[in-house]
Amino acid sequence: MEHTEILTRYTANFVDELVKSGVTDVVISPGSRSTPMALTFTEHPSIKEWILIDERSAAFFAMGIAKQTKRAVALLCTSGTAAANYFPAIVESHYSRVPLLVITADRPHELRGVGAPQAIEQVKLYGDYVKEFHEMALPEATPEMLNYVRNKAAHAVYIAEEGNPGPVHLNFPYREPLNPDFSLDAIWEPTGYGDYERIHQVSLDGRKRLTTKQLELLTEKLSTKKKGVIVCGPQVDEDFAEAVTTLAAHWGIPILADPLSQVRSGKHAKDNVIESYDAFLRNATIRKQLKPEFIIRFGAMPVSKSYLFYLKENKDVMQFAIENSAGYREPTGNNTEFIFADAVELCKDLFSHAPEMDFNLAFLQTWKKMNYIAKTELLHGAEDQITEGEAVRGLVDVIPENSSVYVANSMPIRDFDTFMLTTDKSFTVLANRGANGIDGLLSSGSGAATAGNPVTIVSGDLSFFHDMNGLLAAKHYQLNVTILLINNNGGGIFSFLSQANDKKHFEALFGTPLNIDFQHAVTMYGGEYNLANTEAELKEMLTKSFQEKGLHVIEIKTDRTENVDWHRGKWQTIEQEILKGKE
Amino acid sequence: MEHTEILTRYTANFVDELVKSGVTDVVISPGSRSTPMALTFTEHPSIKEWILIDERSAAFFAMGIAKQTKRAVALLCTSGTAAANYFPAIVESHYSRVPLLVITADRPHELRGVGAPQAIEQVKLYGDYVKEFHEMALPEATPEMLNYVRNKAAHAVYIAEEGNPGPVHLNFPYREPLNPDFSLDAIWEPTGYGDYERIHQVSLDGRKRLTTKQLELLTEKLSTKKKGVIVCGPQVDEDFAEAVTTLAAHWGIPILADPLSQVRSGKHAKDNVIESYDAFLRNATIRKQLKPEFIIRFGAMPVSKSYLFYLKENKDVMQFAIENSAGYREPTGNNTEFIFADAVELCKDLFSHAPEMDFNLAFLQTWKKMNYIAKTELLHGAEDQITEGEAVRGLVDVIPENSSVYVANSMPIRDFDTFMLTTDKSFTVLANRGANGIDGLLSSGSGAATAGNPVTIVSGDLSFFHDMNGLLAAKHYQLNVTILLINNNGGGIFSFLSQANDKKHFEALFGTPLNIDFQHAVTMYGGEYNLANTEAELKEMLTKSFQEKGLHVIEIKTDRTENVDWHRGKWQTIEQEILKGKE
Repeated sequence: MEHTEILTRYTANFVDELVKSGVTDVVISPGSRSTPMALTFTEHPSIKEWILIDERSAAFFAMGIAKQTKRAVALLCTSGTAAANYFPAIVESHYSRVPLLVITADRPHELRGVGAPQAIEQVKLYGDYVKEFHEMALPEATPEMLNYVRNKAAHAVYIAEEGNPGPVHLNFPYREPLNPDFSLDAIWEPTGYGDYERIHQVSLDGRKRLTTKQLELLTEKLSTKKKGVIVCGPQVDEDFAEAVTTLAAHWGIPILADPLSQVRSGKHAKDNVIESYDAFLRNATIRKQLKPEFIIRFGAMPVSKSYLFYLKENKDVMQFAIENSAGYREPTGNNTEFIFADAVELCKDLFSHAPEMDFNLAFLQTWKKMNYIAKTELLHGAEDQITEGEAVRGLVDVIPENSSVYVANSMPIRDFDTFMLTTDKSFTVLANRGANGIDGLLSSGSGAATAGNPVTIVSGDLSFFHDMNGLLAAKHYQLNVTILLINNNGGGIFSFLSQANDKKHFEALFGTPLNIDFQHAVTMYGGEYNLANTEAELKEMLTKSFQEKGLHVIEIKTDRTENVDWHRGKWQTIEQEILKGKE
Repeated sequence: MEHTEILTRYTANFVDELVKSGVTDVVISPGSRSTPMALTFTEHPSIKEWILIDERSAAFFAMGIAKQTKRAVALLCTSGTAAANYFPAIVESHYSRVPLLVITADRPHELRGVGAPQAIEQVKLYGDYVKEFHEMALPEATPEMLNYVRNKAAHAVYIAEEGNPGPVHLNFPYREPLNPDFSLDAIWEPTGYGDYERIHQVSLDGRKRLTTKQLELLTEKLSTKKKGVIVCGPQVDEDFAEAVTTLAAHWGIPILADPLSQVRSGKHAKDNVIESYDAFLRNATIRKQLKPEFIIRFGAMPVSKSYLFYLKENKDVMQFAIENSAGYREPTGNNTEFIFADAVELCKDLFSHAPEMDFNLAFLQTWKKMNYIAKTELLHGAEDQITEGEAVRGLVDVIPENSSVYVANSMPIRDFDTFMLTTDKSFTVLANRGANGIDGLLSSGSGAATAGNPVTIVSGDLSFFHDMNGLLAAKHYQLNVTILLINNNGGGIFSFLSQANDKKHFEALFGTPLNIDFQHAVTMYGGEYNLANTEAELKEMLTKSFQEKGLHVIEIKTDRTENVDWHRGKWQTIEQEILKGKE
């Protein structure tokens, strides 16, 4: 068999097995060495390819698709720094547990380490950030090697998706000539099986559950206590909200729900859901009043810094951190017991095993009362000028059912934490909280939009600037993307930190005002731009944008110093009201 | 000594030693954990800080400064994916041997691997791409530890700059509170030396030279041959052009000079310089006529693919590759002898040792004649519509003395190779030829512009798009940057490859037209935009842009298919003319 046929069959079998393993999307960045793989992906009838030129953006875009669909997404680029551009999204995917299949085309071995053009060392390029790395063989098309390449494809998808999902890296060397020949017969067929059909390794991957004995132990421990708190960090399982609120309702304990937990929004009963804890846990006296006797946390830590303080002051209480598979996410150093069990199954099993508990209902009532006071104050006061608060509130008011919100790190996610109150609307809240970078937001959000439902990206100006290239995808593919741009002309979060006291260097080093009119970028990418000056305008513009395809950017302009003052004012009022009530 | 004082003295001593070691520029991306280092750099009177928000752009910008100044430049970012964004430029710097000092701020150890926010594993983050990595100690301010931190600073700069220069990575953990106290006394003073002054380790780093015996051996070998060729790949030493042309003139042999060799431009005698070899070495018959008996190559391979073919057909000739320090850049697998000696010193020593050689002068004449024919044809024909050829030619005509040109990979560098003819003007030609990516161009070019001389960036549309965030620096710092944007609406180089025959997928996968009007971006960044339709217009706009500070973008629009046809037409004419002459 000659070169081109071998290359064609090898690559086609690989791609076909990816598809049989459930991969539906591939994000490709243009290049020459990746030609065999790129053309084969494009030829395959059952996979959708997205072409993005900027590889950094492409990787975040793929991550966005994977976060929305919860399935592995393939990435493909050529050799060289193209592959290095994937690194930020790979790091984020590693820490936030998102399945990615990273395919890098490479020069063949004789062109490595000898100064050949566009040849860099790509073996183990991403170090420990990938769950697995394989240097693939040069194309061969014996039955054995076609079986090998199919096995590697299936294996890679499985690894990316099992346990704690994450990125997997396959490096494919290719020699010229690179063009496949799709006129050949039966290139997609696995060979060498004779009469029997190849079983495609779609694994049945079970979920971890505690044994009866383990449930006994756990509920025993909990029953020795009276005051408990459930804390929900970021969650992706759509059944989780129902399971945890059912448990909490029957046990009569509060749930502190992070905006990314999917517990604040949806059709489940939310009587015990406490969403404004960040506001009142700022106060040390209040924290003391709310001292728990046990804490059960599902998932990573919530965004809230106040909750971190609360936790640090409760080193002496019994605490559990639940991980679906494995993990060690306990940043305070508190003595914590880790329970490795699927969150949904655990809630159901705990409820089955111990449907009633004798917990202190007054404790729950205190939380609910404080939460109510905080919510009321946060809902207060439509200012003349629109603030972050109105922006979040307004968005939640008009956001369509079954859409997604992709929130930027730094200030926006904190604004969401503060101002996203419980709602019966079903929508998903996403963010890149693995490493909390300001990079890749627009690409991630656009990737999430490929699934079909509208996506609203809530961005600051720095996040918008950092990933401005990410706007190309929304334009090119006419994705339903709405960007709510909260522009405070700089790094707003720093105004809350002690660095703000350094008047001399602050603006240059931390304020970093861009002084850019983003409308130009929006126009360049064929999007619709609007500036909202009031909450009413914002809601109107948002509503209109949800009804139309393509890129919509709605900007609000806020002032960083005013933002700090206004936030602090609200928190102060909340604390005063709560402490007043306690006397 | 308490925390803040320790942090202040430790960081100040580090920064001061960097400056004493010759570091003059630092590129900082905003963040919180990097506060101690960022503020200290800013406070130090003798270092210039550049603030760039997009870390990927920041790293290429730093690389651009380093390429222009040939000294190590510091980079500083906060923890998390910010550091991962440096990876593309680090890979490029590794392969193109550019000194960078990469400083990443980090969470302290107790916040690593425990799910703490914005904490990622940063130890050995860049793997084998850095010359050295050090995990730095948490701040301490005993005399011993201040000495340690100074030694590490000096050592890092030395390593980055010696031998084959490259990136060095230092990871600095910091605990809160992060603000230094610059009101303290004598924070910049090294301590613990008593009466004697600390010697700042500015090493005297010698250059490799062959011994007399080695020169004897080499010249012996060469004197057994009659037909030799010198090939100059990318070079940075400003004395090289004079040295190599002097040698070649006395030996009577041709020099094939890559545009990045700095040999095509400048005040040195260029009689033996052959610049149009890429055009006529395309032809197999001509290549045979020019068969050499030895080849001496200085530096990495030239851009020219024709030269690669020439080399592959001359496996049987004696060939030498000269590396200043060490390296193994021989991508054809030809039997090559590596000579590790400083290029300038070697040329001078060879000339001293063997001022005359009995080489075949007719061979040189043949090269010169063919080169002349090619040049004449290439200079021919101002088309109605401006082509890449006119663009390069026009630029070289009007470019100011002592300026720099930063050329994009893919098509522009090949256009430069074809159309940059020898000139007495002194200007530097730069490119990112370590890994030949299309990323980071605008940032690199802007970084080079910080040295003060005008920089012209020659970019394609894909390179322009990829690094569009790089335009911010030119705006923010009013750098003298002119961008010549050759827009053929897609990946022009692919039209030359066999992939172009695949009509079905070509446009989407390889053509990748952006369909973007870049004028919006230029306006957004406060730059001046112009569209040139003829060579005359282009020259006028360029001339004006060189006289003004700030960002200027001059676009020309070309057609990819026409480009291919026109190039092929020229090459055909050249080959015909040359072969005709030979009969």
